[in-house]
Formats: sequence, C-alpha cells, structure tokens
Amino acid sequence: MASAGSQAAALGGFIARIEGEPHRAHVTFRLSAGLGGEGLTCEVPVRHHALTVDEPKSIGGGDLGPNPVEVALAALAGCQAITYRLWAAKLGVRVDRIEVDVEGDMDVRGYVGMEDAVRPGPGAVRLRVRLEGPEPPERYRALAEAADAHCPLLDFTANPVPVERVLDLGG
Amino acid sequence: MASAGSQAAALGGFIARIEGEPHRAHVTFRLSAGLGGEGLTCEVPVRHHALTVDEPKSIGGGDLGPNPVEVALAALAGCQAITYRLWAAKLGVRVDRIEVDVEGDMDVRGYVGMEDAVRPGPGAVRLRVRLEGPEPPERYRALAEAADAHCPLLDFTANPVPVERVLDLGG
Repeated sequence: MASAGSQAAALGGFIARIEGEPHRAHVTFRLSAGLGGEGLTCEVPVRHHALTVDEPKSIGGGDLGPNPVEVALAALAGCQAITYRLWAAKLGVRVDRIEVDVEGDMDVRGYVGMEDAVRPGPGAVRLRVRLEGPEPPERYRALAEAADAHCPLLDFTANPVPVERVLDLGG
Repeated sequence: MASAGSQAAALGGFIARIEGEPHRAHVTFRLSAGLGGEGLTCEVPVRHHALTVDEPKSIGGGDLGPNPVEVALAALAGCQAITYRLWAAKLGVRVDRIEVDVEGDMDVRGYVGMEDAVRPGPGAVRLRVRLEGPEPPERYRALAEAADAHCPLLDFTANPVPVERVLDLGG
C-alpha cells in the first residue's frame, strides 16, 4: 500500500525511467487461453497470475468464473479506479475513496446467431464514478477529465483497437 | 464438462428459451470496483466470483493481479476460445483443441501523460488461433469466420462501444 505521496513518487520514478530509456515505453502484453475437447471453462494464466473465464450453466458453461464480457467490464472498472488514483497523485488532488459502478447492456441474440443485425458484443456501457474527499468539486471535475483522457480501458472500450487474426491449422 | 453434443443441446435450449421469452435476450451486466485511500489493488466482485486487478510495483501497484489491459486481453482470449467451442457445436465441426494467443501493444506514455498524441490504451492487438481436429481445413476456416462474426470480445475490442460517464460527488 502506497500513500498519495509515495504513489506520486512511484509514478515520477516510472516516468523518469522511461525518459531515460524510451524503448521501455513500448510494452507488449502476451497471454494464451486454451480449451480441450469439452466444456467452456478457460483458465488463462497471466504472468504469475491466473484468471478463470467461463459461461453460465444456462449456455453450457461451468460457471467457474465470470463470463468474458463481465471480465472486460471488471477490467474497465478497475482501470478507471486505478487511473483516478494515479492521476489524483499526479495532480495533487486528495481522494479518500473512489467507487466505480459499471453497467454493460448486451443483446445475446447476436452472440448465439439468432439475429445477424445485432452486434455480438455489448451495445452500451455506463459508468458511475463516486469520489469522496475534502477538495472542492471543480478539483474533482478536473480529475475526472484527466482520468477520461488517460484511462487505457476507457479508450479500449470507446474506441476501435485494430485486431489482426491468424488461423493456425498446423501441418 | 459438456460433450460437443451436450454443448449443442445446451446452446439449443438457450436459444429456445429466448425465442419463447424474447425479453431474456436483453442482459445488463453490473459490477463495481472500489479503491480506499491508498494503493492501486482493486478487488472486483462479479456475482459470486471475484477478480483482482492491480498494477506492477514499477508504477506503485502491489502486483496482486494482472493489470487492466491484461485482464481485457484475457477476456478476449477466453471469449475467442469459448466462441469457437460454441460455434463448433452449432455448426457440427469437431475440434479437439483450441488455443488462442493474444498480444497487445501499448505505448505507456499515453497512460501516464508523457505524450498527449499517444492513445492511452493498446494501439494494436494480434490473435493467433490454433485448432486441432480431424476435419478438413475449409471446415475450420468456415468456423473461424463464424467465430469472428459472433465473438463478443472481438467486437468489443475492434469496434467502439458507446460509454456514458456520470461523476457523483455526493451531497
């Protein structure tokens, strides 16, 4: 656990290292998911961590983890909270508590192929960000603007990310 | 664990329930992430599951979980694998093994505010999907096309999702 001051120091050190060695700014994250012959439960190792992604039993999953859309929304909620915390440290805004509620609407007919005109992913996402602390409202509004402009998962959600896909059939 | 036949049956039952009660197609996922006064480690409950989202120690996190971009990429990898499995069942294509490798490139200068012209989220994602099984290649290519057209997280990643954000300062 880092105090706001030590958080700002950690962020400053991180920025200084990138300024000293600019190649450090370019990061590639890599991970893999596999499914054997049966079932929908995916164990996804991420470095020394692990996530379980699954589907509810209603669609034939084991419900041993959140479904993929829930996992993406959890990434968004966590990223928002972390981005507010980092940028509060950077801007010197005291925040005692950050709560981020996320809702995502999905019409599952797209996913299961019942309706070609329906997109397969969520069609709308809503965020409610609650901030507690002693600063005047305009300071928190400025923080929210900075967080909106710099949150990786808000960008990932709201804007297209180019995806290339290769199919490997062996042989 | 469901066999391919029972997976197809589960999916068929799911579709039949939605056809019988169309309002079931419209799902809203809800979750929340909170951060107290210090640190970057987010515990995110999702129904009866829980995810931990964190940052590496280099940026002041506790490294108790994958970072938000890794979590989103894990959602994508898992969603691809599950979508291939579901659509293989739907199309009657036998697949013995599905492996999905995901890479995501990010220039972290956007996130930490070093370079306004750099987007804060990942700028490119690459997928490698390996399929093993006894079917001829054209069957797997058709499966890949169906999966690409119906994967919720591929849609989420490659296309914009409208996001509304409300700031709640209490009082």
